[in-house]
Amino acid sequence: MTGLTVIGFDADDTLWQNESFFRLTEDRFAELLADHVDGAHLKERLLEAEKKNVGHYGFGIKGFMLSMIETAVEVTEGRVDGRVIGQILEMGQEMLGHPVELLPHVEETLGVLSDRYPLVLITKGDLLHQEQKLAASGLGDLFAGVEIVSDKVPGVYARAFADHGGAERAMMVGNSMKSDVVPALAAGSWAVYVPHGLEWALEQAETPAGNPRYRELPDLGRLPAHVAAVAGD
Amino acid sequence: MTGLTVIGFDADDTLWQNESFFRLTEDRFAELLADHVDGAHLKERLLEAEKKNVGHYGFGIKGFMLSMIETAVEVTEGRVDGRVIGQILEMGQEMLGHPVELLPHVEETLGVLSDRYPLVLITKGDLLHQEQKLAASGLGDLFAGVEIVSDKVPGVYARAFADHGGAERAMMVGNSMKSDVVPALAAGSWAVYVPHGLEWALEQAETPAGNPRYRELPDLGRLPAHVAAVAGD
Repeated sequence: MTGLTVIGFDADDTLWQNESFFRLTEDRFAELLADHVDGAHLKERLLEAEKKNVGHYGFGIKGFMLSMIETAVEVTEGRVDGRVIGQILEMGQEMLGHPVELLPHVEETLGVLSDRYPLVLITKGDLLHQEQKLAASGLGDLFAGVEIVSDKVPGVYARAFADHGGAERAMMVGNSMKSDVVPALAAGSWAVYVPHGLEWALEQAETPAGNPRYRELPDLGRLPAHVAAVAGD
Repeated sequence: MTGLTVIGFDADDTLWQNESFFRLTEDRFAELLADHVDGAHLKERLLEAEKKNVGHYGFGIKGFMLSMIETAVEVTEGRVDGRVIGQILEMGQEMLGHPVELLPHVEETLGVLSDRYPLVLITKGDLLHQEQKLAASGLGDLFAGVEIVSDKVPGVYARAFADHGGAERAMMVGNSMKSDVVPALAAGSWAVYVPHGLEWALEQAETPAGNPRYRELPDLGRLPAHVAAVAGD
């Protein structure tokens, strides 16, 4: 008996597609500015702007839109056409309105696990947009709690799991080594890394190899068996 | 004995200045585009954009920045100078980094009331920015709970007060008739309206005259006496 009492899930690229929409939008952004600047260089400049701005914009599409606009102004030294700015706004608004695309095995895995454990959704990003995606996903009723946070640090996991037995009896599941795995392990939880394949550059971190509470799984379909093993069923 | 058990506070323009920074930025926005469009007309167009966008941007400065940029592109039919777009971004970033300016009587009133009641901060806007303002305000330790929400509807008050005796034993205090007073009354709470003088056009609503749980106060300095009267001390 190990006393697992609650399971936390990340949302973007753990339950539904996210990064792929950012990549597609970046490609369109590069096309829009192809007359001014090489695409690879533009994406580097955009990433620099995102890194610089994340401390006051936080995570999410609105900040991404603002960083694209800033990058467009800067790489063109102010010569960007106003209509291009309008197109960047439209691209961002399309992202905000995009239908939710669930990842494989999400529905059955959450269905099985929610019968046995309270599930908590722990995600960062724009508050309203994350709420809207959860509503559109149809998964809302499977979660006992939803925490939309500005950043994922160990204290966030301690608070999110406090009502359900505490972080040391919790398992966190997500696609970000930096945001889901490392801080959850630091809070004393089990952590399951389910790589998505597309990882935002700001979400990378070293693998906590050797930590007995850490496990990598190829997809969410394997999660119920791992949960059962941890719980000693 | 009426059983008051918890007091909720709005943040922007209830505890600290907010709308005034938006108004100053709107004035600067109008100056930037003075060669293209009359200031009053520009502000009308900006308000229209904000109304159109609030459903996917939510409340807060990032959405305001995006609506200013959209308005600048549209009123100039794409002829806006890229450097003007850069200046709009800078204005928004200045707003995000602006020091917190507490309103009169806030510190002593919260100090007195927090000795007798749990206080809950209930605010909408950008998650990260609201957290940063609360940290910068120095008021964080006075609150038993903080709820940053995407919109203020009766269910939000029911949830925010659930751990402290429920909405019917709660008092909500704020400067917005539409967001603080009307939905809190609908949830069964007492509500105190403390007008700020500057009201965003999207925050207006009719006064709930005649509701015995409603009271208007000129400033937060009067709140402890009103609380004592409600509590029957």
